[in-house]
Amino acid sequence: MASNSFGRHLRFTTFGESHGPAIGCTIDGVPAGVPLSEADLQPHLDRRRPGQSKHTTQRQEADQVRILSGVFEGQTTGTPIGLLIENTDQRSKDYGEIARQYRPGHADYTYQTKYGIRDYRGGGRSSARETAMRVAAGGVARQILKAALGEQDWWVRGALVQMGARKVDRANWDWDQVDQNDFFCPDAKAAALYDQDLSAIRKQGSSIGAVVEVVAHGLPAGLGDPIYAKLDSDLAAAMMSINAVKGVEIGEGFNAACLRGEENADEIQPGNDGQPLFLSNHAGGVLGGISTGQDIVVRFAVKPTSSLLIETNSINTAGEAVKVRTKGRHDPCVGIRAVPVGEAMMAFVLADLLLCARSNKI
Amino acid sequence: MASNSFGRHLRFTTFGESHGPAIGCTIDGVPAGVPLSEADLQPHLDRRRPGQSKHTTQRQEADQVRILSGVFEGQTTGTPIGLLIENTDQRSKDYGEIARQYRPGHADYTYQTKYGIRDYRGGGRSSARETAMRVAAGGVARQILKAALGEQDWWVRGALVQMGARKVDRANWDWDQVDQNDFFCPDAKAAALYDQDLSAIRKQGSSIGAVVEVVAHGLPAGLGDPIYAKLDSDLAAAMMSINAVKGVEIGEGFNAACLRGEENADEIQPGNDGQPLFLSNHAGGVLGGISTGQDIVVRFAVKPTSSLLIETNSINTAGEAVKVRTKGRHDPCVGIRAVPVGEAMMAFVLADLLLCARSNKI
Amino acid sequence: MASNSFGRHLRFTTFGESHGPAIGCTIDGVPAGVPLSEADLQPHLDRRRPGQSKHTTQRQEADQVRILSGVFEGQTTGTPIGLLIENTDQRSKDYGEIARQYRPGHADYTYQTKYGIRDYRGGGRSSARETAMRVAAGGVARQILKAALGEQDWWVRGALVQMGARKVDRANWDWDQVDQNDFFCPDAKAAALYDQDLSAIRKQGSSIGAVVEVVAHGLPAGLGDPIYAKLDSDLAAAMMSINAVKGVEIGEGFNAACLRGEENADEIQPGNDGQPLFLSNHAGGVLGGISTGQDIVVRFAVKPTSSLLIETNSINTAGEAVKVRTKGRHDPCVGIRAVPVGEAMMAFVLADLLLCARSNKI
Amino acid sequence: MASNSFGRHLRFTTFGESHGPAIGCTIDGVPAGVPLSEADLQPHLDRRRPGQSKHTTQRQEADQVRILSGVFEGQTTGTPIGLLIENTDQRSKDYGEIARQYRPGHADYTYQTKYGIRDYRGGGRSSARETAMRVAAGGVARQILKAALGEQDWWVRGALVQMGARKVDRANWDWDQVDQNDFFCPDAKAAALYDQDLSAIRKQGSSIGAVVEVVAHGLPAGLGDPIYAKLDSDLAAAMMSINAVKGVEIGEGFNAACLRGEENADEIQPGNDGQPLFLSNHAGGVLGGISTGQDIVVRFAVKPTSSLLIETNSINTAGEAVKVRTKGRHDPCVGIRAVPVGEAMMAFVLADLLLCARSNKI
Repeated sequence: MASNSFGRHLRFTTFGESHGPAIGCTIDGVPAGVPLSEADLQPHLDRRRPGQSKHTTQRQEADQVRILSGVFEGQTTGTPIGLLIENTDQRSKDYGEIARQYRPGHADYTYQTKYGIRDYRGGGRSSARETAMRVAAGGVARQILKAALGEQDWWVRGALVQMGARKVDRANWDWDQVDQNDFFCPDAKAAALYDQDLSAIRKQGSSIGAVVEVVAHGLPAGLGDPIYAKLDSDLAAAMMSINAVKGVEIGEGFNAACLRGEENADEIQPGNDGQPLFLSNHAGGVLGGISTGQDIVVRFAVKPTSSLLIETNSINTAGEAVKVRTKGRHDPCVGIRAVPVGEAMMAFVLADLLLCARSNKI
Repeated sequence: MASNSFGRHLRFTTFGESHGPAIGCTIDGVPAGVPLSEADLQPHLDRRRPGQSKHTTQRQEADQVRILSGVFEGQTTGTPIGLLIENTDQRSKDYGEIARQYRPGHADYTYQTKYGIRDYRGGGRSSARETAMRVAAGGVARQILKAALGEQDWWVRGALVQMGARKVDRANWDWDQVDQNDFFCPDAKAAALYDQDLSAIRKQGSSIGAVVEVVAHGLPAGLGDPIYAKLDSDLAAAMMSINAVKGVEIGEGFNAACLRGEENADEIQPGNDGQPLFLSNHAGGVLGGISTGQDIVVRFAVKPTSSLLIETNSINTAGEAVKVRTKGRHDPCVGIRAVPVGEAMMAFVLADLLLCARSNKI
Repeated sequence: MASNSFGRHLRFTTFGESHGPAIGCTIDGVPAGVPLSEADLQPHLDRRRPGQSKHTTQRQEADQVRILSGVFEGQTTGTPIGLLIENTDQRSKDYGEIARQYRPGHADYTYQTKYGIRDYRGGGRSSARETAMRVAAGGVARQILKAALGEQDWWVRGALVQMGARKVDRANWDWDQVDQNDFFCPDAKAAALYDQDLSAIRKQGSSIGAVVEVVAHGLPAGLGDPIYAKLDSDLAAAMMSINAVKGVEIGEGFNAACLRGEENADEIQPGNDGQPLFLSNHAGGVLGGISTGQDIVVRFAVKPTSSLLIETNSINTAGEAVKVRTKGRHDPCVGIRAVPVGEAMMAFVLADLLLCARSNKI
Repeated sequence: MASNSFGRHLRFTTFGESHGPAIGCTIDGVPAGVPLSEADLQPHLDRRRPGQSKHTTQRQEADQVRILSGVFEGQTTGTPIGLLIENTDQRSKDYGEIARQYRPGHADYTYQTKYGIRDYRGGGRSSARETAMRVAAGGVARQILKAALGEQDWWVRGALVQMGARKVDRANWDWDQVDQNDFFCPDAKAAALYDQDLSAIRKQGSSIGAVVEVVAHGLPAGLGDPIYAKLDSDLAAAMMSINAVKGVEIGEGFNAACLRGEENADEIQPGNDGQPLFLSNHAGGVLGGISTGQDIVVRFAVKPTSSLLIETNSINTAGEAVKVRTKGRHDPCVGIRAVPVGEAMMAFVLADLLLCARSNKI
């Protein structure tokens, strides 16, 4: 089944394996007249790029994106935008063992069972390498939002808010810190602790989970369509489709289960210029699946990397018991590089639903 | 934008408002030869039906479903199945206040802002009444699963596992308890406490949140398609589209953030008849977006009902400050009746992806 | 596979069999604020309704449509519109023969082969009865166009332009004639001859083919999206999906094969108010898949009704040779009642692409 | 709106402009286990390639296709197949005039009006260059059909059956002739006359229309889904989406309008091995939108190329009257190179519906 596309009015389709010649993406449904060049996309790709700190995989990829179509004289033309990134560091090596073993927690077994064949080189299609194209598509989405929202003060930002059991202290939250440390962490103190934690974990050949929060500010009310294109439902699908994500929540999220109705209700007062003034944001900016105009707040949980230097029990393709130890390069906390990916998915969902919303009313 | 359909190969489309003449659903893509009658659907609808305990809304609806097409001589024919439920208890009353006020936590403001008009009678389209059609569609999905899986021991079951801060004790888990109490609760002791808790909350005119868990057992490995039709991504969209849901997680879910890789890894041993024997199920039955053959485990958080007898601050459609108190009938814990809805969505996603999986291999 | 929906941004989904209890339709993606009532739809249904002349089937159906959702205080609300028509004249009879025989030219054999089961009563799902719901959906589309195009002089009209080998004389074309005769024929003289022709054909128990032309006037330039949502491509799919249609053409259509480039080119002059003045319309109002602002002209060929009182050779479900003669009621020229159906599909495609076009530019 | 994808279960998405750096395609939904290499695609691309005879454009493109993903060890893996063709002969030149003029019969005016911007270099996205990717996708579809149909004798072939008013003599039909002349013509005598005709037309700077016929043999009964995914409806959309196509017909097509029911009926006899033996094929292999197992026959009309050396009247982007004469390279009869494109679209539709049909029955 065709399943490598995401979006409604605006839709991207990705292709490519970890160790194939290239990965690519087609973004369809972009309105004409949006300023766009490779320089608009590259900074986002650079944030996600591997090999930038000791805490991420040492694979070296320039992740240089080329725009192959859909842009003319610096503007989109309404036709699809083809993007391509060549893979440069797919080390040639003997995949003998990995080809015959199922790593616990990996997609090895499920791909093999589903398809009867799998490209085991670097995880093939199941590799997080695919997320580079999401980030590129998110960059295009940001250009659409920028053109559509004009002067309005808006942004889409993400941050690591938990690694292991350690959460950031929200009293220390500073968005400007996010790009100052190796963790996309808004709390400088927590970042310093994460550095210690993760160095130890990495040396043990272990890995650790994380929670990422993405916030969109300045988006209008009215985005998201009942019943099966709700903003929160699209965000949930978007985030859960990212590699290693095991949970998604909006606003209060799971904590809402503990609350009384009066605690959770976001009361409203008359605001300036006729807009409502919400006195809190337990809803995370979404009511009835439609944006309220408040900050849209989503969090997602990322499981610890399955690739471990620590030996685990598994079976091979012949069904025999084996001991598995992953040798290659990997991120000890995949949650870190999931931050720009989460931002990209949020930006894409919002640009998509913004275009969809043009037909709300006759 | 067309947004009232759910599913891929198998797809349902719902229509209907809380206080309109009827609600309905068309289920498209059902294979021919599936035994189906209204008697297969009614029991599921009866579990979700309002007015069955003191803890649910006192609205009286028979929720009698009629099959209008797609079935001939007791079997599906491959053509779409039209379902209809007449609304019988839409009390005639003065909607004056509700028509002009935005209830905090409700979809009133977002629908009005998005569309410039809203059917305020009983919440209109944003009412949980729509979920009756999901349950009916889930009933059809169960018949497909039954026909496809044959003799295999399989089931899809849901349970309330938390109300407020109180969680069930998993040591007491007994699926047979679920239909023995007013809470779809698998822990009889917890159910007794919930009864006390909720009686108090109801008397205070308040409401409370909850967590629901849905488990699918006996489904084959190989369901779910990379990258944007992953089983977990489809489940996340499905559950998040249910009214009042604010979070979704698979397997360990948010707890995975706290785990080390070796703790979270589901080790494998050679099992009987060539199948792998997983030694744990932190993954909740999904790896790389594809089912492993283990139990598929999803949990979702339901916020407390926004309709309160307690007064809250809000504004009216003229932008003036008002005090809001909801009079009508409602559920003090909408999480309870979300249990059969969650089961239905799980069954539907599985039946859909089972049909999709027929083209995995040439 | 889900295949009973049509449209992109605006989408309708139909269900129902010829002799089931009802047929229905859900129209999704209708913008809020469109005036709509049953009175807007019924006249279109009445034009398609059977039993109105000696030249159409004598089945008596009131085809009374009910709006079940999506309209509040006379206006659409942005939520899906559920429509229902009860079947009233499904005569009880012995279907013994028809249940076991494959009528030449009918869908009997293909449905049976595809699904292994078929609802043979009145042709089941393959009956042209389904087209009543298209006409209803087309009525909703007209309301959208009316609201969107405002004061502009626009219309969508259809006419029978050929029956058997006899074509209308375009010199006699008068749109006002179309509803003055039993053939939706714009040429009164041709209509009189068709009356004679068809009376003879009907008495012989035979049937005859026809060509229908549908024209849309007053639509703006810019409708239709490259490459696979071209206006002409969508129109081709729309018309070819109507029962018994075997060919579709736009503008010059098949005649374009005979023309030189300079004959077929629609030259342009500067027109009033900055609009181009096209000197001809060989293109039928579509260039590069996008509307030019000229009249959009589509024609489609309808094969002769397969149900015949004349005996033909066939086989039965056991594979044995049989003689087939259809007894029941039917139209000797299904092309006639295809006129309002073709109009409806044209109106729907245009309303859909008009909504899609709202995102052409940023 | 996203509109550059075609297909249902199997779907391709194209990007690229005539004079951009590259064109590309992603094919999604290909089952695992299909043998595939570039050598399977190149021969089809070579048939469509420009510059091969005096009767086609002299643009020189190697049209060398690269597979970038989805294939491992010579077989498809179930993941999307990325294809890329670099553009090599986009001559640098002064586009001054063409940038400011609307060529009659071209998409210049409609793209400009729709999007407010257009890539005028070589026609940009509206160029038939896009069809190279359709041919590549069709090649993948053929590999799927080959793997699925196994030993069965099947083929999909196309032929030019009319150029200008001159039709081939079907008595001379010889499929083997098709690749022996510059016209994909199955009638050697007609081909010789076409050569004379087109040489004269080309010298005059004119162009001419054509009709193409595509036939699929050996496909099973049961392909195509009621009501809006009918085989004939999908074929009509497929063919009408090809550049310059103005009409599509199935089997008898427009001629069916002239026939009596008994003439058009394809009578049936008991055949060998329990299969029905159809005594004729007026239906073109489709009844009720579903394949009968007979040859599937589609014809489409291609208008004469709009690019002419003969001067025509038009306007420029400022709305002023201008004389237009196209200088660049072009095909005097675009119908010729439409033959492999039509074959590709037929193959793709069939492979798609073949995969869809796997869920006909439970």
